[in-house]
Amino acid sequence: MTKGNINVSVENIFPLIKKFLYSDHEIFLRELISNATDATLKLKHLTSIGEAKVEYGQPKIEVKIDKKGKKLHIIDQGIGMTAEEVEKYINQIAFSGAEEFLDKYKDSGKDAGIIGHFGLGFYSAFMVADKVEIITKSYKDEPAAHWTCDGSPEFSLEPSKKTERGTEIILHIAEDSTEFLEEARIRELLTKYNKFMPIPIKFGTKEINDPDFTPKTTKDKDGKETTEPHKKITVDNIINNPNPAWTKQPTDLKDEDYKSFYRELYPMQFEEPLFHIHLNVDYPFNLTGILYFPKMTNDLNLQKDKIQLYQNQVFVTDNVEGIVPEFLTMLRGVIDSPDIPLNVSRSYLQADGAVKKISSYITRKVADKLKSLFNENRKDFEAKWNDIKIVIEYGMLSEDKFFEKADAFALYPTVDGTYYTYEELFNKIKANQTDKDDKLVILYASNEDAQHSYIEAAKAKGYEVLLLDSPIVSHLMQKLESTKENITFSRVDADHIDNLIKKEDTKISKLTDEQKTELETLLKEVIPAEKFSVQLETMDSEATPFMITQPEFMRRMKEMQQTGGGMFGMGNMPDMYNLVVNTNSELVGEILATKTKKKQERLINQSLDLARLSQGLLKGQELTNFIKRSYEMIK
Amino acid sequence: MTKGNINVSVENIFPLIKKFLYSDHEIFLRELISNATDATLKLKHLTSIGEAKVEYGQPKIEVKIDKKGKKLHIIDQGIGMTAEEVEKYINQIAFSGAEEFLDKYKDSGKDAGIIGHFGLGFYSAFMVADKVEIITKSYKDEPAAHWTCDGSPEFSLEPSKKTERGTEIILHIAEDSTEFLEEARIRELLTKYNKFMPIPIKFGTKEINDPDFTPKTTKDKDGKETTEPHKKITVDNIINNPNPAWTKQPTDLKDEDYKSFYRELYPMQFEEPLFHIHLNVDYPFNLTGILYFPKMTNDLNLQKDKIQLYQNQVFVTDNVEGIVPEFLTMLRGVIDSPDIPLNVSRSYLQADGAVKKISSYITRKVADKLKSLFNENRKDFEAKWNDIKIVIEYGMLSEDKFFEKADAFALYPTVDGTYYTYEELFNKIKANQTDKDDKLVILYASNEDAQHSYIEAAKAKGYEVLLLDSPIVSHLMQKLESTKENITFSRVDADHIDNLIKKEDTKISKLTDEQKTELETLLKEVIPAEKFSVQLETMDSEATPFMITQPEFMRRMKEMQQTGGGMFGMGNMPDMYNLVVNTNSELVGEILATKTKKKQERLINQSLDLARLSQGLLKGQELTNFIKRSYEMIK
Repeated sequence: MTKGNINVSVENIFPLIKKFLYSDHEIFLRELISNATDATLKLKHLTSIGEAKVEYGQPKIEVKIDKKGKKLHIIDQGIGMTAEEVEKYINQIAFSGAEEFLDKYKDSGKDAGIIGHFGLGFYSAFMVADKVEIITKSYKDEPAAHWTCDGSPEFSLEPSKKTERGTEIILHIAEDSTEFLEEARIRELLTKYNKFMPIPIKFGTKEINDPDFTPKTTKDKDGKETTEPHKKITVDNIINNPNPAWTKQPTDLKDEDYKSFYRELYPMQFEEPLFHIHLNVDYPFNLTGILYFPKMTNDLNLQKDKIQLYQNQVFVTDNVEGIVPEFLTMLRGVIDSPDIPLNVSRSYLQADGAVKKISSYITRKVADKLKSLFNENRKDFEAKWNDIKIVIEYGMLSEDKFFEKADAFALYPTVDGTYYTYEELFNKIKANQTDKDDKLVILYASNEDAQHSYIEAAKAKGYEVLLLDSPIVSHLMQKLESTKENITFSRVDADHIDNLIKKEDTKISKLTDEQKTELETLLKEVIPAEKFSVQLETMDSEATPFMITQPEFMRRMKEMQQTGGGMFGMGNMPDMYNLVVNTNSELVGEILATKTKKKQERLINQSLDLARLSQGLLKGQELTNFIKRSYEMIK
Repeated sequence: MTKGNINVSVENIFPLIKKFLYSDHEIFLRELISNATDATLKLKHLTSIGEAKVEYGQPKIEVKIDKKGKKLHIIDQGIGMTAEEVEKYINQIAFSGAEEFLDKYKDSGKDAGIIGHFGLGFYSAFMVADKVEIITKSYKDEPAAHWTCDGSPEFSLEPSKKTERGTEIILHIAEDSTEFLEEARIRELLTKYNKFMPIPIKFGTKEINDPDFTPKTTKDKDGKETTEPHKKITVDNIINNPNPAWTKQPTDLKDEDYKSFYRELYPMQFEEPLFHIHLNVDYPFNLTGILYFPKMTNDLNLQKDKIQLYQNQVFVTDNVEGIVPEFLTMLRGVIDSPDIPLNVSRSYLQADGAVKKISSYITRKVADKLKSLFNENRKDFEAKWNDIKIVIEYGMLSEDKFFEKADAFALYPTVDGTYYTYEELFNKIKANQTDKDDKLVILYASNEDAQHSYIEAAKAKGYEVLLLDSPIVSHLMQKLESTKENITFSRVDADHIDNLIKKEDTKISKLTDEQKTELETLLKEVIPAEKFSVQLETMDSEATPFMITQPEFMRRMKEMQQTGGGMFGMGNMPDMYNLVVNTNSELVGEILATKTKKKQERLINQSLDLARLSQGLLKGQELTNFIKRSYEMIK
C-alpha cells in the first residue's frame, strides 16, 4: 500500500480559475474591491486597538481606467503588505489571509467587519487580465514590494519605490475582456456590487460649485443686476454610500430617510413605497435589513426578485428564494446577513436550520409591523389595503402562522368602502345574514360594474356586500370556510337574493299552479336549454323579471384552477348559467296575458336579452341585433 | 529581484472545490457519469482502431444506492486505469485526461465523441462525499487498483482483487448530503442530466412479462376459459435513451418518431407539437438538434426556457438566451453543440463569433421550414397560423432578415376566415380600399364580438376586415407602415366607415345648415364634452344614427406601450372617444321634430346609451338604469 499527497499541478490552476471559479467574469471587480475594503478595515482595527501606530485618516479606494495603456487600477490606502507577506498571501493560492487575521484577533471585538476569503478572490483577476501587478507598501516600516505575474505560475517580486501606505493592483486587461476598459461598464459594476460598501470608492472626478464661494451681484448704471458665474471646483466622484440606512439604528432614522434610501435602491422607481420594516437582530443569527411594501399589481409573477441580499455590505444576489418566505419575495429592500450560506444548492438552503429561523423571523416581523400599522393608524392602513392585500392574502394561504396573526389586521372591504376585520364583519352581519340553517352567508362581488344590478338587489335587503377582487381570493375563501365555523361565501350573482340567504318566510305566488306550468312550457320552447336552466321563483313583484345567475361552487372551482389549485379538470368545464324568472313580476303576468304566440316570444326574447346584458353575456351579432331593434323601438 | 513559482497550497484545494467549483452540488452525478461515459467511449474507440485487443461488447454504466452503508456506487465497464494511471490522472488535480487522449488520437477520426475535462470533474465528488474510493481495472493486462481519499490531500493506493474491466467509484455520502441516498432524488438527477447520454445507464431493476413465454389458455368442463398468469422476468432498468432522435439522420425518421421524441422530452405535456425543424450542420460549426413549434398562447413570458441545451448528449442548461434568437426561445426542443462556450458571461457569449453564426443559422432554418410548410400544404399552415403567429410576428419585429423572409409566409386572416399573404391582400383590396389620396387603407378588428357592428358596416361597403388580435400586432403594423409604401392600418372603430376610406363622392345632406347648427347646440347641451367629442357626419340614411369611435393613432400608441415601445407617457393618457352622429338618419330627423326639450333629451340619451353599449362602454349603475328603462318600455 502506497500513501502520498495529492499534487495540484499548477500549470492547470489558471485555466481552472478562468473557466470554473465564477461563471460570470465581471465578479473580479467585486472581489478586488472586497480585498481593498478588507485591507482598509484591517488597518482600522489595528489602529483602534493600538497595534498599528499610524494615522488611520479617511482612507478611500480608487478605481482608475487607463484606456490607452489597457490597464485597470484598484488602489487602496489600507494595511499594505511587506514582501514577506506577498510571498505568504499571494504566492500561496487559496491561503485565506482574512481567516488567519480573524483567528488572531477574534477576541478583540467581533465587529471589525472583515470581508472573507482574501487571497482566493485575488486570482479572479486572471479571468480578465493576462498580466497582473501588485505594488504594495505595508503600514510597518518596511520597503514596498512589486509583484508581477503573467498568468503562468512564474512570478517576479522586486522592491518598489512606492511611499504611500496601501496596495495598488494593476490589471493588464486581456483582448477578450476589453469591455472592462469602458467607463460605463465599470460604473455599472461598481453600482451593482459596491454601492453600499463601507469604504468610500472614488471613480473619476466631478465638478461642483465651490461651497466657499458666494457669487457677487453687481448693478450697472441702469440698475440692471448681473451675477458673476459660480466658481467651480473639482472633487472626487464617490460612487458608493458607505453608511446605508440599514446599517444604522431605527431610532436614528426618520421616515424621510427610509424613503430616500428607497430611491437610492431603486432610482428608476418613481412611486414611493407604502411603508417599511426595519430588520435588526443579532441572536441567534445576525441579520439587518429594510423591507419595503411597494404598491402591488395583480400580476403575481412580475414583481419578484427585487429584494437584494448583501453580506457585510457586499452585494451577493437579488434572488432570495429559499431565504425569504415566498409570499414576501414580492416586497423590496435589502437583507444583510453573514449567516446565510452561499454557493449551496437551493434544497440544502431550505433545509438549513439558520435559514429556517431567518425566514420565520422575517415572517413574524412583517406580521407584527402590519398589526402595529393597523392599530396606530387604521384610516391610513385601510387606504393602503388595496395595494398590499395580495401579499397578505398570499401569506395567509401559504404560511399558517401568518394566517393566525393576520386575523387581527386582514381587511374585508365592502362595495361601499367600509373596511371590516373578520370579527367586525361577523358581528355586523350575524343577525341579518344568517340563514334558516344557521349558516352565516358572506356576500361578495368581484366587480362592482359587472355585477351592479345584483349588488343593488342585495343592498335593497340591507345586506353587506364585500368587494373581493384579488386573483387569489377564491383560495382564501375556501380556506376561511374550512377554518371558521359555519360560514359560506357567495357571490351576489350566484342565485337570486332570496335563495342566497334563505329565510323562513315564504312568498305568496300571484300565479296558480296551472299558470306556472303554462309559463314553464312556454319558456322552455323559447329559451335554449343548453345555455340556460330555467328556474321559476316567487319573488317580490318589484324585483327584476328575468335574471341570469351562475352557481357559486362551479364558478369558484374554475377560478381556483386558473391560479393553481381547485379540482382537476374543472378549468375546462363550460360555464353554467341559470335563468331565474320572477313569477310575481308584472312582465310575467303580461307575457301570460298576451294573445299571440309570436308576441309572447318577442317579449321573452327581449327580456332574455336584457338579462344577458346585465351579466355581460350579450355580444357580437346578438348585441348588434338588439341595438338595431332598440333604435326601432325608440322611433 | 526574486523569481519563483506560485505554490498551490493543497490543504485549501478541497474547500475551494466544495465552495466554488459548482454552486449546485447535484452536478457531481453528471460529472461522474460523464467520466464513466468517457471511459467507455475511449474503449470503444481503441477497439475500433485495433489498439485494444478486447471485446467491446455492450457495456453499460450502473448507479447503485447502498442506503444502509450510506454509499453511492457508479460502475462502468470502460477503459479502466492501472495504478500508474490513477497516480497520473487522479492524483494530479486538474490534469485533463480527456485532453491528452484527444491530442494523441486526434487524427484517427474526430467523431470519437469524447466528453471533456476528465479529472477535474471527478473531484466534484467531494462536494457530497467525505470519503471517495476508486476501484479500477484497466483493459491492459495489469492488476486492479484501489484508491481511497477522505478529502484531505492524503490518499492511499493499493492493489485490488477486481477482475472485471472498468471503474467503480464509491462515494461515502456526507451528513449534509444524505438527499443523494434517496432513490427519488437520484432518479430525478439521472433524468435531468443523463436522459440522452450515449451509454445505457442502469438504475435498479424492473419486472416485465417474459417475452419468451406465451400463457396457456385452458377450458374447463363447462367450456369456461382460464388463462394462466404471465411469467415475469427481472431485467435491468435502463434510465436513458442512448440514441435520441436528434443524433439520427432526418431521412431515418418518420413524423411519428419526432412526435414520440417530443413526448420523451416533455412527458407532462399532453398537447402535440405543431411541427418540427431538424437542425444538422457540421461546418463552420457543429450543431444538431430538433426544434418544435408548440401551440402558443398570448402570454409571451410564460413560454420561455423550454429549449434544452446539450453538449455531446450531456444536458447543460435550459437557458438558451444569447444562443438562440430571442423570438425563438418560445419554441421547444433540443440543441446539441460542442461549439458553444459555457461558463462565460452572457455579454461575452453574445459577442462570440461562433455563437452569432449559430444564432443566424437557426433563424434561417426556421424561416426556410416555415416557407416550405406554407408551400407544401397551405391549408394546414393556415389552420396552425393562430398558434404560431406570435412567434412569427415577434421574429418579424426583432430580426430584419426574418422580416424579409417572412413576407412569403406571414398571413393576414380576415374576420371571415380567409388567409392572405401580404401580396395577395394588397392585390385583393387595392381597387376598392385606396382612398382619394392614393393611400391603401387596411382595415382590421381586434375582437370580432366587441367590434361587431363596426365590422358589419365595413363589410356592407365590400371592404375586407382583417382579424389581428395578437398582443404585439400593433408594433408589426407600425413596422409595415414604415416598410411598405403608402399604406395605413385602421381599426374598424377608429372612425365611421366613410371617413376611414375617404372617396371623392360627397353625400347629400338632408339637413339645412341651420338645422345642423340647431342639432349641434342641442347635442352639446346633453352630451358631456369631457367624455365625447361630437362629430356630425352626412352618412347613408340607413347607417347607424349614433356611433362611438376611437381614433387610431392614440389608441395604437397606448397599446404599443403596454407591450413595450410606443411613445413615452402615452400609456397613462385617458381614452379618447368621438360620438359620430349621422345627420341623415331618420332618428336625427325625429329628434329635431320633437317638440318638448325633455323628450328630445330622452331620445338623445337613449341613443347615446345604445351607441355606448355597442362599444362596451355602458356599465354599472348606467347599465342597470338602462335595463330598468328598457323593461318599462317593453310593457
